[in-house]
Formats: sequence, structure tokens, C-alpha cells
Amino acid sequence: MIRAETPGTERTPRVAAARKLLRRAGRDRAGRFLVEGAQAVREALAAGPVHELFVTEAAGARNPELVERARDRGVRVLAVTEKAAAALSETVTPQGLVAVCDLLDVPVATALAGAPGFVTVCAGIADPGNVGTVVRVADAAGCDAVLLAGDTVDPHNGKAVRASTGSLFHLPVARGRDAAAVVAACGAAGLTTLVADGRGEMDLHDPDTSRILAGPVAWILGNEAHGPGPEVFAAADHRVRIPIHGRAESLNLATAAAICLYATVGARAGVAPQLPPGAD
Amino acid sequence: MIRAETPGTERTPRVAAARKLLRRAGRDRAGRFLVEGAQAVREALAAGPVHELFVTEAAGARNPELVERARDRGVRVLAVTEKAAAALSETVTPQGLVAVCDLLDVPVATALAGAPGFVTVCAGIADPGNVGTVVRVADAAGCDAVLLAGDTVDPHNGKAVRASTGSLFHLPVARGRDAAAVVAACGAAGLTTLVADGRGEMDLHDPDTSRILAGPVAWILGNEAHGPGPEVFAAADHRVRIPIHGRAESLNLATAAAICLYATVGARAGVAPQLPPGAD
Repeated sequence: MIRAETPGTERTPRVAAARKLLRRAGRDRAGRFLVEGAQAVREALAAGPVHELFVTEAAGARNPELVERARDRGVRVLAVTEKAAAALSETVTPQGLVAVCDLLDVPVATALAGAPGFVTVCAGIADPGNVGTVVRVADAAGCDAVLLAGDTVDPHNGKAVRASTGSLFHLPVARGRDAAAVVAACGAAGLTTLVADGRGEMDLHDPDTSRILAGPVAWILGNEAHGPGPEVFAAADHRVRIPIHGRAESLNLATAAAICLYATVGARAGVAPQLPPGAD
Repeated sequence: MIRAETPGTERTPRVAAARKLLRRAGRDRAGRFLVEGAQAVREALAAGPVHELFVTEAAGARNPELVERARDRGVRVLAVTEKAAAALSETVTPQGLVAVCDLLDVPVATALAGAPGFVTVCAGIADPGNVGTVVRVADAAGCDAVLLAGDTVDPHNGKAVRASTGSLFHLPVARGRDAAAVVAACGAAGLTTLVADGRGEMDLHDPDTSRILAGPVAWILGNEAHGPGPEVFAAADHRVRIPIHGRAESLNLATAAAICLYATVGARAGVAPQLPPGAD
């Protein structure tokens, strides 16, 4: 089914070059990253430029329409052995289908253009699975953008891409090294900035918080162990705590993010009808 | 610091017996399970009977008060080598501190005694990390019990225990093989039973749903891939969908659980004050 342009073995220079994209330094140097699996490759093809598609014989037989679509879009389709596909994979069961795509991130100013109403900021999230899950929840909740601030892990990391289950391709993602500057940019874009933090002075379910959530907001999620850092903590407009009613000490980052983002969805569904027509 | 009652090597019969608890069949046969790490062992000692505590020299030196407390409670403290501690551990970095505890689950009827107002039901959850995370969120949200129905993974699995970060010891946990019977028991206990499902006929943020959530409810969370199964789907009072506003196809199980359980917390914080005094 697949007519490779170069004979596919794990020794080809194309595979060797693509392997460098498994590491952040390689991705940043090339401006490209790897996307594995039929579902993710489909999302990548729909979202933007794909440069190469490595396909094993078995994966090509399982996804002929996908290989055809890639070829139609001018993607260089390269037949590879199972061994080469495994060398491009970080998963236990390689999918046999790996695409080389342009990095997705845009400048912070671009992500915040157009009067956003709902933004998620990752400020120092270290675990790639968490970053991917936050992007997925932000997509589901209807966020306009996800900003990755400070030392947050690269969202193009394979584990982050997988955890996002395609959502990385659905909404603008931007990176900013200076986390406080990212928070300030959100404020300048008209967003009320809220840090999710167990020590927050506001309770997530306070009526005052619900009123804020009904307006334009940026939720800031900090590092799994240390929170968002003191400069972000101080720069945000409010610090909001999720109420803990039982004896749990805390929530994990992904569940806390989901609770905050969907409290926003709920506040917009619930608070708006309570306002009289014409009210602010 | 540690005076072992038996010389500690990886060859002792106690270690060999404890190793059997790494598997579900061994746990069910012995009625016991393993708890690893200082924090979890502290929770186990506070919660109920601990039979044995395996301690490496290094872990004993790091946690002298914990070893002392265990000994005060009549726990058999056994010095073990690092190798033996690793053999009792499923983690990459063994903690050197492993307790043998009684299984925690109680009968479903016991968990539902005392007019519960808020219960979580896991109906076929397959991933132990997900079960542990759901128990943690249920604890934080103030649930009265977690019921593990049908083919749900054993909550005493090491990964589930770790993901619960101690919450497994905080609230009653019960297991019932017949998932539809567990749902029926919730109904008989006065709980409105709600399945979280993307095809649900009610939206999580509908005012009608919020009114239901302000009363006694049991949330039912199904299998990660297949949902809760048709008999549970049919037995529940309502099927509730989390609204998806972006282009994400779905949410993962742990984030969906967190959203549903905290929507309940929010409904109770928000809906109650809107009712006139004396209203139902």
C-alpha cells in the first residue's frame, strides 16, 4: 500500500533525525515535534503542516485513508520497520505511525489577542502528563488559550501530547519564560487572574468567586509540589482555594484544574440567568 | 535504633508471606494488604490494626517516632535489608517502610448505614491509579463512602493506595460484585443515583441537576473505556453529562469524577442559600 520514497530501515537518516525530537533540546533546535498514533496524526493533519509520516507496513494497512490523506497534503510518507517505529516511540506498544510536525506554540500576545474570556495558565507544572491533561480539560471547558509559563514542561513532550488526546491541536498554546509577565499580560488583556491554591483567601464556591468566574478570567495552576512561585502568587488578582470537606490533605493537580475550570463553566451557566436583563 | 524480633534478610518467611500481598489473590486469601511509605503507614496506624512493619535501617533512622509508635501499638517491627524492602515495593524508589494491614472494606450495607448524603460508586473502573484518585477526590469533597462495584479494581492494590494519598483510610470503602445491586442499595438508602456519562440526558450545570445535587446523591463512575455497563446505566435515576464546550472528545475518568463531585459541593454551597427559609 505504501510506496516509500526512501527504503525504510531503522538506519535511515530521516529516522535518526526524527529521533532527536524525542528530547526537548532537539525539538527546540528543529522547531518540530513527534506525534504518534492514528488519532493524534489525524488531528495533526487537520491542524497544520506535517512534514513527514513514518509508517510501518501493519499500521499502513490499518489506516490506508490516513496515509492517503497525508500524501494528498504533500506529507513525505516513509515506510519504516517495526523496530524503527519503536525507536521513534516512547510507549510500551508503539503505534507504528509517527508524524513530524511544526511546534504548535504561538507568542503569548497572539494567544491573548481577540479579547479572550477564559484562559488557563500553567505556572511551573513539571509533569508532562499533567500538562497534557490540563490542556485537555481546558479544551473541554472552552478555554480560549493555554499559556505555559515559567519552568512548565514542554507541551510537545510525547507524554504531554498523548495525555492531551488531541486537544493540543485544538486551542492556541503559548510559552513565556517569565511567569509574572505572563500573568501581567493576562491582566492587560482584561482577564481577572486567579491562582488555584490551598491557602487562597477566596473559596471557590463563594458567591463573590462565582461572580468573578462569570466574567473574563485566567486560572493559574502552579507546580505540583511548590505551587506557582511567590511572584505569580503576588501578581495574581486573587488566590482561590478549593474547599476540602473531608480529611484529604489536598487534590492532585489535574483534578484541581478540572474542578476550577468547570466551576467557571458552571458559574457561567448558573450565574448569568440570575442577573436581571441589562445588568452588568 | 530498631531491635528486630527476627533477623532481617530478604529470605525470612515473614517477607515471603508479605510478598504474596502484592497480588489480589494473596490479599483476598490473607485479608491483608501492604502500605508503603511514612505518610501512608502513619495513616494506617491511626486508622486501624497494623500487624507488621518492615523497616530498613535507613528508613528507621529517618522515622524513629513512627517506628516507636508502631511498637507502642503492639505492631511487630521487623528489620529488613534494602533488598527485602524493595521486594515488598512496587515503586521505583522503595521507601524502606512497609506495613501489613487488615483489608479496609466493609459490607455495602455498613457503608450505607446512617443516612448518607453523598456517596461515590466506582462501577468497573479498571485502572488502580484512577480508583485511588477517585477515593482521594471523594474524601476531599466530603463523601460519606466509596462503593466499588462490579469489576472495579481492588482499592488495596499498591498503586491505588498510593494514588489515594491516605484517603483510603479516611472514609468507608465497600465492595459489591453485583453493580446493579449496589446502585439499588444506594436508592434504598435514600440517595438519588446519577451516572456520569457523556450521553447523559441531563447537563451537569442545568438548574434541575443542581437541585438534585443539593440533596442526597450517589455519583456512579463507570469503566474508563466502556462506561458503567448497561444494567447500571438503566438502574440509575439519571444519567448526567459534563458539558464539553471546546473540541475535546471527552475527559479522563479522574478529572470527570472531580468535576461531578465538586459540582455537588458547589450546588450545596450555592443552591441552599437561594431557597427561602423553610422551603424543601
